Amino acid sequence: MATTKLLSDAEAEQIPAVKAVFDDIRATRKSDFVNNFWRGLANDPAALKRVWEQLKAVMVADSAIDPLTKEMIYIAVSTANGCSYCIHSHTAAARAKGMTDAQHGELVSIIGLAGQTNHLVTAMQIPVDPQFEVK
Amino acid sequence: MATTKLLSDAEAEQIPAVKAVFDDIRATRKSDFVNNFWRGLANDPAALKRVWEQLKAVMVADSAIDPLTKEMIYIAVSTANGCSYCIHSHTAAARAKGMTDAQHGELVSIIGLAGQTNHLVTAMQIPVDPQFEVK
Amino acid sequence: MATTKLLSDAEAEQIPAVKAVFDDIRATRKSDFVNNFWRGLANDPAALKRVWEQLKAVMVADSAIDPLTKEMIYIAVSTANGCSYCIHSHTAAARAKGMTDAQHGELVSIIGLAGQTNHLVTAMQIPVDPQFEVK
Amino acid sequence: MATTKLLSDAEAEQIPAVKAVFDDIRATRKSDFVNNFWRGLANDPAALKRVWEQLKAVMVADSAIDPLTKEMIYIAVSTANGCSYCIHSHTAAARAKGMTDAQHGELVSIIGLAGQTNHLVTAMQIPVDPQFEVK
Amino acid sequence: MATTKLLSDAEAEQIPAVKAVFDDIRATRKSDFVNNFWRGLANDPAALKRVWEQLKAVMVADSAIDPLTKEMIYIAVSTANGCSYCIHSHTAAARAKGMTDAQHGELVSIIGLAGQTNHLVTAMQIPVDPQFEVK
Amino acid sequence: MATTKLLSDAEAEQIPAVKAVFDDIRATRKSDFVNNFWRGLANDPAALKRVWEQLKAVMVADSAIDPLTKEMIYIAVSTANGCSYCIHSHTAAARAKGMTDAQHGELVSIIGLAGQTNHLVTAMQIPVDPQFEVK
Repeated sequence: MATTKLLSDAEAEQIPAVKAVFDDIRATRKSDFVNNFWRGLANDPAALKRVWEQLKAVMVADSAIDPLTKEMIYIAVSTANGCSYCIHSHTAAARAKGMTDAQHGELVSIIGLAGQTNHLVTAMQIPVDPQFEVK
Repeated sequence: MATTKLLSDAEAEQIPAVKAVFDDIRATRKSDFVNNFWRGLANDPAALKRVWEQLKAVMVADSAIDPLTKEMIYIAVSTANGCSYCIHSHTAAARAKGMTDAQHGELVSIIGLAGQTNHLVTAMQIPVDPQFEVK
Repeated sequence: MATTKLLSDAEAEQIPAVKAVFDDIRATRKSDFVNNFWRGLANDPAALKRVWEQLKAVMVADSAIDPLTKEMIYIAVSTANGCSYCIHSHTAAARAKGMTDAQHGELVSIIGLAGQTNHLVTAMQIPVDPQFEVK
Repeated sequence: MATTKLLSDAEAEQIPAVKAVFDDIRATRKSDFVNNFWRGLANDPAALKRVWEQLKAVMVADSAIDPLTKEMIYIAVSTANGCSYCIHSHTAAARAKGMTDAQHGELVSIIGLAGQTNHLVTAMQIPVDPQFEVK
Repeated sequence: MATTKLLSDAEAEQIPAVKAVFDDIRATRKSDFVNNFWRGLANDPAALKRVWEQLKAVMVADSAIDPLTKEMIYIAVSTANGCSYCIHSHTAAARAKGMTDAQHGELVSIIGLAGQTNHLVTAMQIPVDPQFEVK
Repeated sequence: MATTKLLSDAEAEQIPAVKAVFDDIRATRKSDFVNNFWRGLANDPAALKRVWEQLKAVMVADSAIDPLTKEMIYIAVSTANGCSYCIHSHTAAARAKGMTDAQHGELVSIIGLAGQTNHLVTAMQIPVDPQFEVK
């Protein structure tokens, strides 16, 4: 159960600032589906707009990293942060962008291995090698 | 400062199981540089071998995800886990594999955005949409 | 499902050290409701008393930070730690202490923004400015 | 050491999009000091602008939560996320906004207590009480 | 709901590499029960084998730390990482290896106390005493 | 650098409530060394006393888990939480209580393996098996 209300389409229609963002989400994604994250965020229309604009700029716009790789990076962060909702939504997004079962299996393995070496390094408090310095 | 000793090359030479892994690291990476992580792990030769074999299987072997993307995923996990050493070593590795400044900037932005939406979702305790279910 | 039993009122009545704390929780909060956290902790009566005494000292006693702000700080920590139960219980407590929908919306935005800049800073490994030093 | 360059004022002057944000930071804060976070983010001028605009909207604009409370919430999230730089910069900001030693001591205690109960709850996997449901 | 399929026994039987690991899990644990973790990992037979071999080497083989202590350490890490499944499975394993209610209560208290002092130390950014240095 | 002052012995002598705790730390540990954690916490004498009393109750008092195991559990939590100071201080404490190099190596491996399986489980969102339920 959420700690805030999730706005229905009927409720979103009543608030022009929310309706505008929901319309843009639907147009951008070419889909009628607006997922719960935006329905929760819609309680604060200014926050809804801020986060959506940012998501469009970082995840939707053309850029130097391809769309599927972006989703895999998102899954990686969300896993390390333990955000169940985010793992589900971005795994679905990655699959929609073509992630194969083999790629998902490898992604999971990389995340697991990084989790392991992160813990090993931290437990041993390994000092950074000077060779890694950015000039 | 580390919570364990970091083995020097001279010390590694004395322990055949450690020497064998250090030799393989150098041969695999075509470089004489063995970074501190392996020097700390070398206190437990069996662990050193286990982790190195795993890293080769996941990060070095040919696979469905390209080498640069793997490093970016590794950086993403390491950042969310706050592992400073790991962020440094894998950012250096990603650069060595061709990551451009533009890609690094985008990677940082994706990690930041995921960090934000992870926190927003968690604070609102958004329930998973049934549409995200794996069939 | 919990990894430990949750003590019912009938069970709590049988253990004087537990009954004493449950009675104090009810008297302090002027409510008959004892939430599940205390019912789990009651398996170890000494721990129950230790944590409750501490909570009274930090969260209930008069102090330099007002009660609602304390709850918002608690929600912030609990969100970053991904503790679903804690987010629910302290959001309910904050609402009971007068948190408005607008304040909740802003709290969520601050937590989200902090999550973002925490990740950005960590990914870039920004060094602390000397100006921030405590004299 | 950072994983990216920190732009000096001379370098920032060369990039109009960066200069514009640095100027706005200085004007908004009425101070010549631009801290390292922005100098690292300036490698990606679009990201610099996005994050700064968001910070202004959430942390600087008038709102339902007072400026000192906002900084304390920021410190709370940054501590749970282990972001050393962020803890330093926002503790300095909170002090500049009037946080007393007594308030800092209490803030630290609340964060510590939340850290404790978060871990206790998670170890016992306490189920959410139905009473905490948002209607 | 999982983000990947969980292989049934019938499906596992079809894939020799998966069947071999499932058989070894059953033989090693002297139990017919193969828990969901392995059924998810079985989507990537090579990963399944890698992780299982590692678990046998670290958790099952004779060693300098006794089996129950190992499980308690596992619970401690899993709690700090917020992995609900892992807390459940390793608490069950610890109980099967003889963990008493008193030991579980103490384990929970140690984890809680560590969570508290971790947060206190981080909020205050306490510098490491030179006395803790490893020679 | 800390975000708060670290009290010297001379300063601690001036505050009876602080002096009393420092004296008890020295007497309990049979050592003149008071580490920085207590010197930072001493800015809030009531918090100093609260945390020290709790540490004595959980970590010093006779109990169902032996002192070395307690320290290893503490290291495990501190590693997963990325608390560098805590890892250093409790690794030193574990060594003082007899932790061998072999035990430290195994502890590091268990923490690393748990870090890996925690991430694997979270990425796959494995559902808890009904067999793990506490009756």
